[in-house]
Amino acid sequence: MLSPLTFGNIIHKKRDGKSLTREEIDFVINGFTHNKIPDYQMSSLLMAIYTKGMSVKETALLTESMLYSGEVLNHPYENIVDKHSTGGIGDKTSFIIAPIAAAAGVYVPMIAGRGLGHTGGTIDKLDAIKGFKSNVGPKNFKKQLKDIGVVLSGQTERIAPADRKVYALRDVTGTIESIPLITASIMSKKLAEGINGLVFDVKTGTGAFMAKKAMAKKLAISLKNTSLAFNKDVYTFITDMSQPLGNNVGHSLELIECLEVLKGKGPKDLINISIELSAAMIHVSGKATSYSSAKRLAQSLIKNGKALKKFEELIKYQGGDTSFIRNYGKLPASKFQHVICAPKTAYIKQIEGKQTGLACISIGGGREVKEDKIDLSVGFQFHKKVGDYVKKGSPILTIHHNEKDKNKIELLESRFLNEIYKFSIKKIVSPPLIIEKKSYWAKNA
Amino acid sequence: MLSPLTFGNIIHKKRDGKSLTREEIDFVINGFTHNKIPDYQMSSLLMAIYTKGMSVKETALLTESMLYSGEVLNHPYENIVDKHSTGGIGDKTSFIIAPIAAAAGVYVPMIAGRGLGHTGGTIDKLDAIKGFKSNVGPKNFKKQLKDIGVVLSGQTERIAPADRKVYALRDVTGTIESIPLITASIMSKKLAEGINGLVFDVKTGTGAFMAKKAMAKKLAISLKNTSLAFNKDVYTFITDMSQPLGNNVGHSLELIECLEVLKGKGPKDLINISIELSAAMIHVSGKATSYSSAKRLAQSLIKNGKALKKFEELIKYQGGDTSFIRNYGKLPASKFQHVICAPKTAYIKQIEGKQTGLACISIGGGREVKEDKIDLSVGFQFHKKVGDYVKKGSPILTIHHNEKDKNKIELLESRFLNEIYKFSIKKIVSPPLIIEKKSYWAKNA
Repeated sequence: MLSPLTFGNIIHKKRDGKSLTREEIDFVINGFTHNKIPDYQMSSLLMAIYTKGMSVKETALLTESMLYSGEVLNHPYENIVDKHSTGGIGDKTSFIIAPIAAAAGVYVPMIAGRGLGHTGGTIDKLDAIKGFKSNVGPKNFKKQLKDIGVVLSGQTERIAPADRKVYALRDVTGTIESIPLITASIMSKKLAEGINGLVFDVKTGTGAFMAKKAMAKKLAISLKNTSLAFNKDVYTFITDMSQPLGNNVGHSLELIECLEVLKGKGPKDLINISIELSAAMIHVSGKATSYSSAKRLAQSLIKNGKALKKFEELIKYQGGDTSFIRNYGKLPASKFQHVICAPKTAYIKQIEGKQTGLACISIGGGREVKEDKIDLSVGFQFHKKVGDYVKKGSPILTIHHNEKDKNKIELLESRFLNEIYKFSIKKIVSPPLIIEKKSYWAKNA
Repeated sequence: MLSPLTFGNIIHKKRDGKSLTREEIDFVINGFTHNKIPDYQMSSLLMAIYTKGMSVKETALLTESMLYSGEVLNHPYENIVDKHSTGGIGDKTSFIIAPIAAAAGVYVPMIAGRGLGHTGGTIDKLDAIKGFKSNVGPKNFKKQLKDIGVVLSGQTERIAPADRKVYALRDVTGTIESIPLITASIMSKKLAEGINGLVFDVKTGTGAFMAKKAMAKKLAISLKNTSLAFNKDVYTFITDMSQPLGNNVGHSLELIECLEVLKGKGPKDLINISIELSAAMIHVSGKATSYSSAKRLAQSLIKNGKALKKFEELIKYQGGDTSFIRNYGKLPASKFQHVICAPKTAYIKQIEGKQTGLACISIGGGREVKEDKIDLSVGFQFHKKVGDYVKKGSPILTIHHNEKDKNKIELLESRFLNEIYKFSIKKIVSPPLIIEKKSYWAKNA
């Protein structure tokens, strides 16, 4: 006897470690999205998925079901690639690599999110730009992509509504850190953009969502498997997030740092990772025949100013005032600066990522809950990073803030010196930034 | 840093396979009972408990928390023992063993449930007795127990309200078949009766809730462990439910069969299990110093009519018309009988328990959903059981029913002959009824 398609049968299967079929997964996702399956049943199934896992096939089916819960863009051309990063402290590469890739002829339909908790959000940073419209509807989205090859937009209600509903429930039921659920959440939104290829930057270390390397590797493999199941070429990176990326943390401050990189300046780590990721985008799009030629192209597009020009084009197209590109004073700036100096002569051994993110929230530069308003002007400037040698009394960090209560800033300073920074007399080798880089081609899979 | 007592921390712990503390379990049970923890969070935690399990200590703590969510009776004397059966088709021993044990001087404060799904409920069967009040409030409960030594009552709102709320959620979230959750559900209600000792009859086989023997053994061990944690002496039985117990299934029909046993007649399997279980109650209560002397006492109380007299006293005390005891015609009776005959000369190899229960629901003798009304008059009389040799054309089963549509009854007959019964040319040995019997004394534990 065929078992009838009921929620009871489906939850019993998953609970007992069995695989769900396409029909069963569609039944659940459609039912939940249309309020036919109540939250208390869905959360029980989510926990069963959390503890029992999902096969590669199930994860792809879940992704597909969530993808088609909403609108799926398609474009009448190829070479469409997006990058997704799992996020971290000071992770701002989108503003650099989207224009580089677009300047190389790659179509970049980037839909990004807002920040919650200790990591910042791409769309929030764009709020610092006067006039910039970060919500582009589907019709304008397609036109803009065709016109200038790049869009940077927030998520609309129409993209993967199932994911939005499932994510909200996962957030309050202890089912966030599940590889198949994370995979389906990321993939359903990226596939809705209508891409042909993908680049994933899975960050690991204390400042990242996937703090443990083993978990990051699992996620990278799952994202690769699901990409290939949808016939998409893919690059997966695992990169270090044990300390903040680049020198600046905070919304205005990070935009400024990105502009510096696009102008051929900026910190080495941010330059390197941006070149690597945009090379991957260019290669996976087919706009270069090898990774090394893609890399050379990316570097040249910075040098000849075309990437910066593409960035300006993007800001202008979405209604933004571009004067900040040449005059950083046009961005929100904090009233006060407080400089922290090295308490001893030593090597910097640690700048703890998660604590840095939480410290940024404490001065208003992030959200604890969705409703929090962000102060775009505040943040941190790291003058020295892990592995650097510092002399006692030399400046290591500037806090940009609007806090009138000096005691609070003194407390923050002691938090940095006692909890976030660690120093060592022995020489410290800076950790490698790119831990792993792999590429997979759907045609050969 | 001590982690604060939040639902998020608790669910992360259990999800990751860690043990919960007393404070954490109390936080959850109190919060959920008082509507401070929403269903969708509780169901997620229940699934985490289902998949990750609970230690003996956690199970006892959960039991305790659920127990003290409501009223806990205590009585100013000892020798208070109850029996709990996990239920099955034709399981009706309570009506026999409660009066036997009470006649032996054991106090029996039995709180029982109603039926749902393929197994019947003790309290439903009592509905067949005119005038009988099956809801005894706490004050009358204590008085009756003191006066006549036995009470047979339905669950009141005041006993373990947490269990009622948790059970309702488990029922719809795939978290019923969990050893720690079943244990806490059973134990919290039994301990609320104020007992000193317990007898558990864990049934296994297709007609039982715990169909698989390994699961039944695990439950028996968990019930034993939790009983000892509460300093209660305990007997655990594992008994066969691969075919219906006794010859009769259905509400009136089962009451009649119990009376037959109390009158020294009735089917052997039902007599044997009733004597064994009441002997265990008498022994664990301290009213006999050994199991064998308890068994002899139980047998004599049937022979000398004292058990039957106690049954009559019980029915009378709770307002019931006792005339049915001598005149079965006073109980609800079906309009029609339909006899099924053996299709061949052979040994009966199987009478499938679960299908028998579902067949009983199909003629109105059970509930599919809580709101269903039960026809107390319908049921089945098995003239032959597994291992019996039957001649072709001889009656093997009488269906008692009120169905005017003959086609439906013919369909039911073919269901019995094709799905429920199996025959064999080779001799079949009837399965052993008592699979395991163990006793544990809290003072030695």
